[in-house]
Amino acid sequence: MKRNVKITLQYDGGRYKGWQKLGDNPNTIQQKLEDILEKKVGRNIPVIGSGRTDAGVHALGQVANFHLVTDETASQIQDYINAYLPGDIAVTEAIFVPEAFHSRYHVKEKIYSYRIHNDAIPFVFDRKYCHHVPEPLRLEPMREAMAMLEGTHDFLGFSSLKKTKKSTTRTLHSLTLEKEGPKLRFIFQGDGFLLHSIRIMMGTLLEVGFGTMKPKEIEEIFIKKVRREAGFTVPPQGLFLEEVRY
Amino acid sequence: MKRNVKITLQYDGGRYKGWQKLGDNPNTIQQKLEDILEKKVGRNIPVIGSGRTDAGVHALGQVANFHLVTDETASQIQDYINAYLPGDIAVTEAIFVPEAFHSRYHVKEKIYSYRIHNDAIPFVFDRKYCHHVPEPLRLEPMREAMAMLEGTHDFLGFSSLKKTKKSTTRTLHSLTLEKEGPKLRFIFQGDGFLLHSIRIMMGTLLEVGFGTMKPKEIEEIFIKKVRREAGFTVPPQGLFLEEVRY
Repeated sequence: MKRNVKITLQYDGGRYKGWQKLGDNPNTIQQKLEDILEKKVGRNIPVIGSGRTDAGVHALGQVANFHLVTDETASQIQDYINAYLPGDIAVTEAIFVPEAFHSRYHVKEKIYSYRIHNDAIPFVFDRKYCHHVPEPLRLEPMREAMAMLEGTHDFLGFSSLKKTKKSTTRTLHSLTLEKEGPKLRFIFQGDGFLLHSIRIMMGTLLEVGFGTMKPKEIEEIFIKKVRREAGFTVPPQGLFLEEVRY
Repeated sequence: MKRNVKITLQYDGGRYKGWQKLGDNPNTIQQKLEDILEKKVGRNIPVIGSGRTDAGVHALGQVANFHLVTDETASQIQDYINAYLPGDIAVTEAIFVPEAFHSRYHVKEKIYSYRIHNDAIPFVFDRKYCHHVPEPLRLEPMREAMAMLEGTHDFLGFSSLKKTKKSTTRTLHSLTLEKEGPKLRFIFQGDGFLLHSIRIMMGTLLEVGFGTMKPKEIEEIFIKKVRREAGFTVPPQGLFLEEVRY
């Protein structure tokens, strides 16, 4: 039967060049999946992701789909893929969805988290899954800046995009902070994010926390739309794609 | 001044041959520390650990001490060592203690945890820090067996030791289970543990959980004192030395 298979994926991005397959580099999550499906059915099956994740970025709930003619159950397909995936990638769910479902076009909301370990001494077991910030952070101005980032804005100044004809307006539904001792988890929920946008917003928030930027500069970046006005780009290992909602 | 420095250490044991230095293999935690101290003072400073951890075993609170003539503060010594340690080892505390303190002789209690991910699908971010058990586990007989392991016993049958003249009697003060969804954390508190003892007790408990052993076989292993009567040895990556008490 013709099936449209929707899969949910976890991956430790540390070893990979990101989600998106690249002509000259096989070391991407998408390529790993397509290689396994090609081995299974003898021809290339394009795997459509909800969007790219950059090199080194992790996923707890990336979503992808692919079309297949098969008599197997979704669970058998999941088991087959998991049997061939390396230990740092796993399919946590596979279900059949209507033929028209598209992992990228139909996204309603994406949830990312950025994890920071804010203590003089790093925590060795999190070193590949958070950004270590030894300097103390002033959380009150950071919260003020977080509130200014929420809402519908042109996020071009908070991205690595060159000028583009496509819209760079997005809605950040919410930006919240969960704090557990030295562990900070910033949760970004929005309808979509531009290239490097979360890592640049996060770097900007850190500069506010260090006192080298003021919360009100957020507004100026929205107006000027110039990347160099914003803060630095934090490293990828703290970033997790948590969930994609449809 | 003459100082006895007590340090508390975290390490990800994945890359190492264990705590104890080995003549022909420099890749141990103890050797890393002695190399750094030798660089600092120009001669070998023996580092005394609370005990060995095996290859691949992790520590959240290993304790060690060493004697040094220095005018620095404990915090300066800690910073020096941390500056040279690789990212998978960190000194989380350094304090001066009385000259007579000995990390191994004066141990009152050690706390280890063994972590299991009990679900059909592994959790990729824990793959180096737990043992993945896809089969369902019967927790009730496991709890019964855990209670039988507690107390003062000759643990020789639960160890890889050859016959020895030294006492193999130890007291397991408590053995408890913390469960959070598929994550199981078995906590072993005792006055000391024989070679591979926790990993063999844990393998025995898993066999009880699978139904291939009965709780009452625990008693027989205490009586027979024969390794082959006990369960398999679980892999090292689930084992953490959590704390050493003095």
